[in-house]
Amino acid sequence: MSFPVLPLESDHAANELSKKPHSHLTTAWISTDIRKHKMPALLSSMASRAAFVTPRFLATVAPTEPKSKPAQDPMKSFYRKDLKIQKATKEQMHTKPDHLQVEKVKFGHTYADHMMTCDWDETNGWAAPKIEPITDLKIHPGAKVLHYASELFEGMKAYRGLDNKIRLFRPEMNMARMRRTAARAALPDFDAEEAVQILIEMLKIDQEWVPYSNVCSLYIRPTLIGTDPTLGVAFSKNAKFFVITGPAGQYYATGFQPVKLLADSRHIRAFPGGVGAYKMGCNYAPTIWVGKEAEKKNCQQVLWLNGEDEEITEVGTMNIFVLWKNEQGELELVTPPLHKGLILPGVTRDSLLELAREMNEFKVSERIFYMEDVKKALAENRLFEMFGCGTACVVNPVGSIHYHNKEKNEYEDWNIPTMKSKYNVMQRFYDTIVDIQYGRLERPGWTREI
Amino acid sequence: MSFPVLPLESDHAANELSKKPHSHLTTAWISTDIRKHKMPALLSSMASRAAFVTPRFLATVAPTEPKSKPAQDPMKSFYRKDLKIQKATKEQMHTKPDHLQVEKVKFGHTYADHMMTCDWDETNGWAAPKIEPITDLKIHPGAKVLHYASELFEGMKAYRGLDNKIRLFRPEMNMARMRRTAARAALPDFDAEEAVQILIEMLKIDQEWVPYSNVCSLYIRPTLIGTDPTLGVAFSKNAKFFVITGPAGQYYATGFQPVKLLADSRHIRAFPGGVGAYKMGCNYAPTIWVGKEAEKKNCQQVLWLNGEDEEITEVGTMNIFVLWKNEQGELELVTPPLHKGLILPGVTRDSLLELAREMNEFKVSERIFYMEDVKKALAENRLFEMFGCGTACVVNPVGSIHYHNKEKNEYEDWNIPTMKSKYNVMQRFYDTIVDIQYGRLERPGWTREI
Repeated sequence: MSFPVLPLESDHAANELSKKPHSHLTTAWISTDIRKHKMPALLSSMASRAAFVTPRFLATVAPTEPKSKPAQDPMKSFYRKDLKIQKATKEQMHTKPDHLQVEKVKFGHTYADHMMTCDWDETNGWAAPKIEPITDLKIHPGAKVLHYASELFEGMKAYRGLDNKIRLFRPEMNMARMRRTAARAALPDFDAEEAVQILIEMLKIDQEWVPYSNVCSLYIRPTLIGTDPTLGVAFSKNAKFFVITGPAGQYYATGFQPVKLLADSRHIRAFPGGVGAYKMGCNYAPTIWVGKEAEKKNCQQVLWLNGEDEEITEVGTMNIFVLWKNEQGELELVTPPLHKGLILPGVTRDSLLELAREMNEFKVSERIFYMEDVKKALAENRLFEMFGCGTACVVNPVGSIHYHNKEKNEYEDWNIPTMKSKYNVMQRFYDTIVDIQYGRLERPGWTREI
Repeated sequence: MSFPVLPLESDHAANELSKKPHSHLTTAWISTDIRKHKMPALLSSMASRAAFVTPRFLATVAPTEPKSKPAQDPMKSFYRKDLKIQKATKEQMHTKPDHLQVEKVKFGHTYADHMMTCDWDETNGWAAPKIEPITDLKIHPGAKVLHYASELFEGMKAYRGLDNKIRLFRPEMNMARMRRTAARAALPDFDAEEAVQILIEMLKIDQEWVPYSNVCSLYIRPTLIGTDPTLGVAFSKNAKFFVITGPAGQYYATGFQPVKLLADSRHIRAFPGGVGAYKMGCNYAPTIWVGKEAEKKNCQQVLWLNGEDEEITEVGTMNIFVLWKNEQGELELVTPPLHKGLILPGVTRDSLLELAREMNEFKVSERIFYMEDVKKALAENRLFEMFGCGTACVVNPVGSIHYHNKEKNEYEDWNIPTMKSKYNVMQRFYDTIVDIQYGRLERPGWTREI
């Protein structure tokens, strides 16, 4: 079974559908709460209300291909059945951080023992995928990935639950996005479900690297690069798919840490007609210098704006949500829409939107909004929460914005009262998502056990 | 001696200065014409008129640092004097294409025997540069270059003259641009002159790879990548500078081949607030898919537009020039300006502007212009020439534009009469530049002999 590559436009359709009352839904989602720890009252009420599935959710997991699979074709994908496994010797294995250390492990600095690699070439298609001890890649100095950023990636995590089962969170969403990105980056396609199954095999081999901790996880980095060793700015005739993994420590050691954002419309991340909606490496390189500039101003993240009218798009490497009372007096959760192609269609974003619609406590909107709107809402005490969301942190509260007022050419500091919100929406999102990830709350279709 | 990193804004100043009559210049450029082949009459007239040097030219080559060099510091640069050379064994050497083959060599498919590499880390700065047999680079699968496009490059050429001397064309310009790009990409700085001197050493070793042909050259690809093996979207604590070279065949085997351009404002290369002015790898990845779309429409290149009003920016990987009679009735050579940061400050672009100002036959403008202007000029038979320019081809005539009319959502074909121009400006530019490159026309400061 492989999953459909969802067109971005489906988001709008889902949004429209979600405005209809949930009562028209015929398929119920069976909520089996296996939470073994204290559940906040508000979340509890949400969990019982969440016994629905939105049309969007159904669309995401419903298989659209016939059950009789076509013959396997190396021009179309690599396959789980062809997997070649060479396990690391004792000498090749690395020391795992122990229980106490693992929470302090710095993101992306420690790698598990194995990597998966699979080569592709235009003539023969995909070779057999391999799992082998992690080692340096040998790359020709003329390879397109080193010159023209012929590269893309995904970020996902494996979580060890209290039941000791290891779960992936909606991995099909990541693999569907990776296929869309590959198409835009002119790199080869593959079968999303085969990729997930190979990931699962890899996690079985490195399962001891998945931390025994309900605040840590094993980060998974699938990557696809163009390895064609020729210097024309052209389609890469060779490519390599690879996956590396490594433990990710605790994001919030002492509770949520609200971040300060640099908002300066002179720095742009993405633009209409560009590739902001794809997880291509090229979207990240230009942000590194801007991130350094933000650091100099004691900001931890950048709030990415677009255009003369300072449309809000993303925050750091996360999607952004605002909870406010809008100008019509409605309580509204708002996040920028996908249709302009300026933002990454985040898996956490999609999950929060779905949960929010199930909560049915406020209006949920995917629509364009501006810095001016935020300023006005703050001035009128209508803005309650602002937070980023992504795989790394689930949610990340915004505490203040260091705004460059381009008309005055001055910086202004805006305080955002996210941590004082009586609605507590961010916190409830966080609790629900991590409960699902660690198996404390069952939500069929959102987790895959390995 | 190292060369100053020129701010982009200097271009405007130079433009202003160039409006003044040349007679105020005190430093004459001694034109020693050593051409051994047929010289077109128009070029001959230009060569004699070219016995000037513009203020811009002086600004580019004038050393600004004191003659007593500061102590060498690995935190600031690698150094020629530290160079370690390991020559290829006979077994490691590759077969060179012979005289007849070399003109047909496909760009970027064949590499010379040696490469230069130099590693940098945050703590120790630059290590000793090495010249060694070309071989695969060993890169950690978590290296930032493979995920976040932490990479940049330059493109330059070495030419073998009829006098058998090998020349580089304005290499200081490339190295100055590479330093500017490195700063924007948050990769380490280096001394431009040390880099040129190391290039020269490398070319001495591989000098037999510089084709014995006055239509071929040895392409040189200096590259800088972030090799830090950690997954944070952050400043790379490790980097590698490397240079590979390879023969480039004849660009125009049967005279100029006018190209057809796809002009579709739905595809954007660069945008204000982005990095279009830097030779970062990230500018190229998104263009590969668009290039494939152009191919499907029988277009060889893409004419990159910007914004609702379809401002003209670049063509393929080249800068663009138009020769027309403007709406004021003046004969004008126009090219988009640098100050918006949308276009690459090309070395050939800069050279053509300088030659054009010396020619003093028409107005020379670096200013914004739009598709609408081109359409109007074509309709009124005022547009004479349109051509791209760059290191690969010197100049590349535009024969037609396949324009997507966004209001009608239809394609239109516009014929561009470049090849019929009575002014012959593109041809004269071409002849002059290649004459300088192959040593047939002397222009001190524009070539470096190895």
